[in-house]
Order: sequence, then structure tokens, then C-alpha cells
Amino acid sequence: MLGTILHGPGDVRCEDVPEPKILHPTDAIIRLSATCICGSDLWPYRGLNQVTSPMAMGHEYCGIVEEVGSAVTTVRPGQFVVGSFCLSDNTCPHCRFGFQSSCQQREFMSGAQAPLARIPLADGTLVATSELPSDDLIPSLLATSDVLGTGWYAADAARVQPGSTVAVVGDGAVGLMGVLAAKQMGAERIIAMSRHRTRQDLALEYGATDIVAERGDAGVAQIKDLTSGIGADSVLECVGTQESMTQAVHCARPGAMIGYVGVPHGVELDGQALFFSQTGMLGGPAPVRRFLPHLMDLVLERKINPGKVFDLTLPLADVAEGYRAMDERRAIKTLLRV
Amino acid sequence: MLGTILHGPGDVRCEDVPEPKILHPTDAIIRLSATCICGSDLWPYRGLNQVTSPMAMGHEYCGIVEEVGSAVTTVRPGQFVVGSFCLSDNTCPHCRFGFQSSCQQREFMSGAQAPLARIPLADGTLVATSELPSDDLIPSLLATSDVLGTGWYAADAARVQPGSTVAVVGDGAVGLMGVLAAKQMGAERIIAMSRHRTRQDLALEYGATDIVAERGDAGVAQIKDLTSGIGADSVLECVGTQESMTQAVHCARPGAMIGYVGVPHGVELDGQALFFSQTGMLGGPAPVRRFLPHLMDLVLERKINPGKVFDLTLPLADVAEGYRAMDERRAIKTLLRV
Repeated sequence: MLGTILHGPGDVRCEDVPEPKILHPTDAIIRLSATCICGSDLWPYRGLNQVTSPMAMGHEYCGIVEEVGSAVTTVRPGQFVVGSFCLSDNTCPHCRFGFQSSCQQREFMSGAQAPLARIPLADGTLVATSELPSDDLIPSLLATSDVLGTGWYAADAARVQPGSTVAVVGDGAVGLMGVLAAKQMGAERIIAMSRHRTRQDLALEYGATDIVAERGDAGVAQIKDLTSGIGADSVLECVGTQESMTQAVHCARPGAMIGYVGVPHGVELDGQALFFSQTGMLGGPAPVRRFLPHLMDLVLERKINPGKVFDLTLPLADVAEGYRAMDERRAIKTLLRV
Repeated sequence: MLGTILHGPGDVRCEDVPEPKILHPTDAIIRLSATCICGSDLWPYRGLNQVTSPMAMGHEYCGIVEEVGSAVTTVRPGQFVVGSFCLSDNTCPHCRFGFQSSCQQREFMSGAQAPLARIPLADGTLVATSELPSDDLIPSLLATSDVLGTGWYAADAARVQPGSTVAVVGDGAVGLMGVLAAKQMGAERIIAMSRHRTRQDLALEYGATDIVAERGDAGVAQIKDLTSGIGADSVLECVGTQESMTQAVHCARPGAMIGYVGVPHGVELDGQALFFSQTGMLGGPAPVRRFLPHLMDLVLERKINPGKVFDLTLPLADVAEGYRAMDERRAIKTLLRV
């Protein structure tokens, strides 16, 4: 079959790869309904994470179960399922605490930019729908697998409450999903920091009440202006650079929480500065599995439309163009038809 | 009158100082019932914070109101009051959010190691009792002013819940108060990290269920052992060094919160390590004013006895010996009779 392999910085190819097989009794094989490219795929694509050997790319997925291992009991062939990019048993103490992304058996999904994928820990990882969803819901269901779940976790970790004032740092797909999540959680004021018109428009559609185009100190000053000098109750940091983290800390009111979901690259935090700012922080890979049933319900009931974040759709064979478009910020997020 | 002045590292003196006067209509003057030495006083005493000019020491206080400024309406001469080491108006947005230690008008108290003290922002800062308390309650009421309020904030920031497993890093007075706070909040398991017998005993008296004498990696291994490899739900970091912070992070389960109240000195946090550990953090100077009415009630109803943390009592004139005893860890905390 065709699969997506990253051979080195900028060198991503759709090429022949072996079909996945059940390796463990807890595995399932799914036929993907669609897959996509994640902002985090750009880190190795840009050479910011080292690529030492060819990497099978893709960790966002939804589709129809083809086959299950002998130990799998909760999903069966023919069902439509979504799973998290973090594979988890959903029974260990960390999972029961709601942090499935730190499951004692955690693995990170890979190889999902392909027509078929092996899902380890299928019972813990996959959530099935009661019937097959309409085709038009596939992009939104796919979004729950990572990008929406991650934006949702950012808002949850930042303790967004009804009536909250929320600042969202980063206008990538995750930041836009953070806006959607904050809106669903009842935030009254949602300030999206974005310089790009199409992203601003989508942020407004998802519930942003204000747009701040400035960055750095000027951006912080704008946030302070918009909040009577107080700062935001909750800040969603959806980038992962020193600049974005500093911006997030400075946008927060004392006692605010920052939910940070951009994988920090080169970020150092000064303990004393953080102490006196009284900024709370919680981040990490999103425990999407915790939110997945609720998010899938919201999609199936057509209450949210996270799939709009896909502004480019390509056949899998053109995956390289999908990476390029996102790298050059011509696309927010690329959906791949398989 | 006599007052306590730090002239340089190791050089603290009880000497003649002018009596405080009302400077602003929002000030009050109180006659202290007792005062004490804080662990944080040892930072400049040890030369770890620079002392550029003589410093009037002391920020923990309780006593009888002597005089109030013309704008003060909530306390009156003759009342017994306790106030926080952070002076706050208790009306600004940060105060209303429960973070009075970041009040827009915040000042830090000073000069309280003396018989009389000026309390700025008296209406926002001071809490009066309905009648004069018994003398035997003075140490515990004094403790609410900072050390108990700070330990309480650590537990609150670390989101201690009924049934929680809590690890307390640091066996100074604040750490011991953290144990007391965790117990009051319903923690089921409270692991105090302490190498000193008298502190271990007091921790057990305050509600610790386990003592870990090891530090660093060995201490972390012990905590993991005691928690079936999971880590603590909540960690109270009550020291402020890189070693203690690292220990706190490693003791925490994924998704746990660390409440950190030791002023960080030279602490750097690696963003990516913190991200993948999924450790939440909230710290800062404690918003004692938020907790003060409740803590004073607990003392007045004799439900808690935080005053036991004072294991040395000296007359104010011997303040220098009080600093030495704490510096050499001969005393946990020194109460000064004024």
C-alpha cells in the first residue's frame, strides 16, 4: 500500500510500504476514512527534531475496523472508530486519573498517513460510534483525534469557566480549536492572537470576541488594554516557542492558569519570575481519550464543526504538497483522502 | 522603641528605631502581641539576597489596634487583629480573584519585629476577632499571618482534595504547615520529606502518615515506592532551590499540581521536560488574606494548633540569637515576645 515516510528535513514521500498486521492480541487494524497532517509533523519536517532513520508519519486517524487481535473486546470489525494520537490502555492509574497521554503503557501513534493503520491498545484507545457517520462528518470526527482534543485540553488545563476571559496564543489549527473549546466551555471573552486574515476569520467563526494582531510586548499591551489592565483568566499557549510562552505568561492575570500544548522547543522558565507572576501552568501531550466520547458526541449532534479547520484537501499521493502548504502557511491544516 | 534591623549578612540587631506613625489615611498602627522570624528572613541574613541598606525586618504580626487613619472603617482601636505579610486593598480585581498577594496596590510588610508597627491598607489587610483572644492562642494566631497561610496556599494551589496523596518537600515551618493544611483538606496520605527527628515528630503530629528521610533521587524513589509507582496527586514545594523543585516535579504523578511557595532562588525549569512530565504548577507569595478568616476561626475554635511550630521563644532583645538558631537549624521557628 502507499504510506508516508519522512526521509529527512523537507523530504517527505508517499511510497510503497508493507500493509500493517496484527502484532499483539491487543491490536486492531483500521481502514482510514481520512487522515491529516499535524502542526507537530512540521517539527521533524523542518529539521527541528532530528530524523535519524525514515519515519512513518501520521498520528491522526478515524475509520472502519478491519480486524482485531484476539484480546480486543470493545470494538469489532465494521465499526467506525476514532482514537487518540496517544495510545493508552485506559485502565492504569494515570489513565483513571484522566491523563491517558501518560498511560503507563503509552505509545505514540505513527504511520497513520496511509490507507490502513495498526492501532495498539485498541480497547483503551479507540471509541466506536453506534452507527456509521455521514461522510460530511468525517473531517470533524478526524479532528477529534488530536487537534480538537489538544485545543480542548489546553482550555481544560487553563481551567476555562463560564464567564472567563481567555487569551489564545497561536493561530494554528490547535489555537483555533482552543477558541472553539473555550466557547463551548462558556468563556465570555475569547481573545485570539492572530496576524492572518483567514485564521482571524475562522477564529471569529469559532467564537473569538476579539482579535489581537500584535505579538510580543505590543501583543501583551493589547491584551492588557482589552482587559482593563488585568490580564486573562486563562491563557492557551498553542505554539511552543520561548516567545509564545513569554507572551502567554505576560497575558495572564495573577492566579490565571496557562494550558500549554505546543511542544516546547528551547523553552526555559525562570522559577522566580514565574513565582512572582503567580501564573499557574499545566501542559503536556493532550489526554485526548478523556475528552473523546464527549467531543465525538458534539460532532455527531452537529453542535460543533471543527472540520472547518481543514482548508486544504489532497489525495494521499500528494502528501508532500500538503506538508509544503502548511510549512509555508498557505494552509492551516491539510486533510488527506486515502 | 526597639526594632530589628539587618545591616548586612549575619548582622541583625535589635536597636532604637523611631516609633511608627500614621502616614496615610488608610494606615493603622498596631501594638504587637507577638512577632516572629520567617524562613524567608534568612535569605538576606545569609547574604543570598543583597542587602544594600539597613532593612527593617519582620512581616508576621498580630496585635491590638492602637490608632487608625481617617479613612479606615473596618477596624478600630482596641480590637485584636491579624494581617497578611502582603498588604492589599482587598477590592482590586486581583484581590477579588483571590490573589491578594498580587493586589494592584500590594506592598510587602516590613518592620514587624518590633513592639509597634504601621499597617498600610489596614481595611483590606487586617482581620479583627470579635473579642480579645486568650493569651495561649497568640502563637497560633500569629502563625496565620504568614507561615500557616503560606502552607495552606501551597496545599490549595496543589489542589489537595479529600482522599489525595500529598508529598511535602521541605520540613521547615512552612512545610509543616503544609502538612497541617493537607490534613485539614482531607488528604488521605501525607508524605513528609524530612531528615530531622523533631520535625518528623511534628509532621506526624500535624497529620503526616509517612516520613521520607532520603532526598534527591533516593527520596523520589521512596515516594514512588510508597505510591505503587504512581507518584503523588499533589506536591507542596516549600524550599525554593533547584534541587527541591526537581524533587517535587519527580514526585508528582502526571496531571498532579505542585503548589510552590519557597521563593525560587536560581531555579530554572526546562519547558519540554515539564511538558512531558505533565506536572501542573502554581506558586507565588501566598494570598493569605483569602484564607485568613477561615484560618483564624480554626484557631479560635481550637481545631488546629499551628503555634506548635514555634519551638523557640525569645524576648525581642535577643532577636539575633533567634536568627542564629534558625540559621543553624537549632530552631524550626522563633517567636519573639515584644
